[in-house]
Amino acid sequence: MRKILIIGAGKSTSVLIEYLLQKSESENIEIIIGDLIVENARKLAGEHRRARAMQLDIFEKNEREQAVQDADLVISMLPARFHIEVAKDCLRFGRNMVTASYVSDEMQQLDEEVRKKGLVFMNEIGVDPGIDHMSAMKVIDRIRQQGGKMLLFESFTGGLVAPESDTNLWNYKFTWNPRNVVVGGQGGVAKFLQEGKFKYIPYNRLFRRTEFLEVKKYGKFEVYANRNSLKYKSIYGLDDILTLYRGTIRRVGFSRAWNMFVQLGMTDDSYTMENSEEMSYRDFVNSFLPYSPTDSVELKFRHNLKIDQDDIMWDKLLELDIFNPDKKVGLKNATPAEILQKILMEKWTLSPEDKDMIVMYHKFGYEINGEQKQIDSTMVHIGEDQTRTAMARTVGLPVGIAALKILNGTISTPGVQIPITKEIYDPILKELEENGISFKEEKKEYLGYNPFGEVGN
Amino acid sequence: MRKILIIGAGKSTSVLIEYLLQKSESENIEIIIGDLIVENARKLAGEHRRARAMQLDIFEKNEREQAVQDADLVISMLPARFHIEVAKDCLRFGRNMVTASYVSDEMQQLDEEVRKKGLVFMNEIGVDPGIDHMSAMKVIDRIRQQGGKMLLFESFTGGLVAPESDTNLWNYKFTWNPRNVVVGGQGGVAKFLQEGKFKYIPYNRLFRRTEFLEVKKYGKFEVYANRNSLKYKSIYGLDDILTLYRGTIRRVGFSRAWNMFVQLGMTDDSYTMENSEEMSYRDFVNSFLPYSPTDSVELKFRHNLKIDQDDIMWDKLLELDIFNPDKKVGLKNATPAEILQKILMEKWTLSPEDKDMIVMYHKFGYEINGEQKQIDSTMVHIGEDQTRTAMARTVGLPVGIAALKILNGTISTPGVQIPITKEIYDPILKELEENGISFKEEKKEYLGYNPFGEVGN
Repeated sequence: MRKILIIGAGKSTSVLIEYLLQKSESENIEIIIGDLIVENARKLAGEHRRARAMQLDIFEKNEREQAVQDADLVISMLPARFHIEVAKDCLRFGRNMVTASYVSDEMQQLDEEVRKKGLVFMNEIGVDPGIDHMSAMKVIDRIRQQGGKMLLFESFTGGLVAPESDTNLWNYKFTWNPRNVVVGGQGGVAKFLQEGKFKYIPYNRLFRRTEFLEVKKYGKFEVYANRNSLKYKSIYGLDDILTLYRGTIRRVGFSRAWNMFVQLGMTDDSYTMENSEEMSYRDFVNSFLPYSPTDSVELKFRHNLKIDQDDIMWDKLLELDIFNPDKKVGLKNATPAEILQKILMEKWTLSPEDKDMIVMYHKFGYEINGEQKQIDSTMVHIGEDQTRTAMARTVGLPVGIAALKILNGTISTPGVQIPITKEIYDPILKELEENGISFKEEKKEYLGYNPFGEVGN
Repeated sequence: MRKILIIGAGKSTSVLIEYLLQKSESENIEIIIGDLIVENARKLAGEHRRARAMQLDIFEKNEREQAVQDADLVISMLPARFHIEVAKDCLRFGRNMVTASYVSDEMQQLDEEVRKKGLVFMNEIGVDPGIDHMSAMKVIDRIRQQGGKMLLFESFTGGLVAPESDTNLWNYKFTWNPRNVVVGGQGGVAKFLQEGKFKYIPYNRLFRRTEFLEVKKYGKFEVYANRNSLKYKSIYGLDDILTLYRGTIRRVGFSRAWNMFVQLGMTDDSYTMENSEEMSYRDFVNSFLPYSPTDSVELKFRHNLKIDQDDIMWDKLLELDIFNPDKKVGLKNATPAEILQKILMEKWTLSPEDKDMIVMYHKFGYEINGEQKQIDSTMVHIGEDQTRTAMARTVGLPVGIAALKILNGTISTPGVQIPITKEIYDPILKELEENGISFKEEKKEYLGYNPFGEVGN
């Protein structure tokens, strides 16, 4: 019996474990779930005869080494910064490894040794990064194989609330780490390529430079730019491409309203506010507005951000109860971002019956036999319930599928990998499709950014 | 004959040296000017029989120690980060020291030992910091002595161009380090107190939250908030004050126009731009605007920042020639801030006949015998020429005056000091006045922010 060690028993691992346990008889595997809090692991293991929970503190070297040695393959679902020690153990004891996280510099440095030992360390095999890589490279490789030349690649992903649970004015609820949503877009300029020109958007303009998308049956969405659009330029083999743009998907109107918080400084996470614990929501808002002996916080807010009396943005603010003078922040030495997060979580937390939704949208523009063409490829996946969320499924399934394929030798190219080769994406995308996670392709007229061939700016 | 060592022979030291040489016979002093480039020192020393130039590399320990030992008092006009090694030598060899820079943490740590040795290390004795401390504390101390209680302290300083040299639409030229102007306001939220309420302004709103000032004979100015308004709260003894606000002075309309650069991200100094060397000014601007096959950079600019066709801001941009497609940036791996600085320096550099101007404005609100009162104290100083600039005079004179008073024992309280006590500010302000640098006080009706006593927000 082969053993798979899963480290970190967070909520997001439920689908992964369910998948592996379903396959455990036919694949003859045992699943060991290790977590610092053994209760978490026990809940996920349940009574399944092929599952075992263990207490595992990854900072206890001996404990960690023993657990890695006992396994045939290790899946680390820990936060990204904790992977590296596990990875070094896997290297030492010759175990394959899988993570859903971005390849860190430290991880990349292991590549040569991992390859020498013939091991596979598969990373970025969740949804984003993960399914985005696989579904994009599948189309890009096909276009190239047909003799096409890539002109444009745009790729957008969003974790949203499903239409049937979309019950607030923001058309948004937290389906993943709320903190990442509040500070999203900070930490550097957004840089991308449009028709051969480098473009830069600073944080304070990010949510006003959105573009629109239409997904059949699901309607209109908007997109704001990611910081790292150019990160995969070489990795995807797109060095000569004219347009390269990655972004985050929201429902239309979200960004324009979110920009109010950005403009006032409410998403700042770099300093703590005076008296944050005793502050009311209204005080919090007022801290970012000029003092006035007579004018209300509401009027100052409207005036400062030039919000018309009949603008829907205003109703979005009221829905958050952000002007309430009686609700206390109750957080000691909190940053604006932490306080805003608390206020939002009261309204944007999923109810038990709520479902989430993942939307992914790729555009591929290319030239073939002198003709310009475009393919749009979209995936929408809706969660089943609060356990089998779209996020948990689209992260957990590719991780689980990859783990089994590596264990069985179907995926075998050694090294620190990300899923961008046919060997990897073909079987995984196929199995994802069997699990209801599939892309729809559509041929479009290639418009690029220059439909009439005029001289650009 | 007593010796004063001046380290660093930058342009800003000319007035300081001229002042000390004027006094050299009556005070029986010799001035030694040390600089890494001895030619700089020689130019300032001239043929004066009381002046001597020397080559001095402060990173050469023996050289530096010898120079400090040979002097009776040391004035460091180096950039602030280089003071500390000189200060340690002064401590070791028992020499007094003067700088115009903010007290660094390292400098502050020497305080106890400096005091033990009975030495005076005087810092922050230029214009801002320097004259601002002295002129403010003089009024604050007087109010307190009369039994008054401080309610409000606002303090503003600006380095500007003199009215007779004010020849561009921005009403601004670089009279000091251009880089500091371009990145000014970055690096953290502006935090201050208004009527007992903490207020926070993020960088992207800083230049839209200005307030106005009127200076007799000089007209209207505007002010944007400094980051560090609360820094001197305790030092000035203003712990219970309701309003504490410090800011930077510009001519009206500057900030609104400057905000265009802030909004587009042109003042960002945190990343380098692709192909910056080959980029034209027009390309630079276009990098911050969306791609369009048809629309001009000008129209995209106007549309993005909502600039009306007849807005004076537009003429300010044209004056800078910022849309020129033929002028090359010519800077390798440059940040947006570096490129913007280059563009601005072409238009905002002082001509040989131009004069600069320092404006300082304090407001003191207080309560005495149940009455609320206000004193406004203002100083305007205009440079004589390109050597005796207002900046060089208002920095060099207080440094020189302090140095002599310390040498002569008039200022003698030992320790790492800043000029906030009567012993220091009284004689220095008096001599500054004799040199034409003086404040005008005016009694005003105290309005605070709450003239009608209404309930505030």
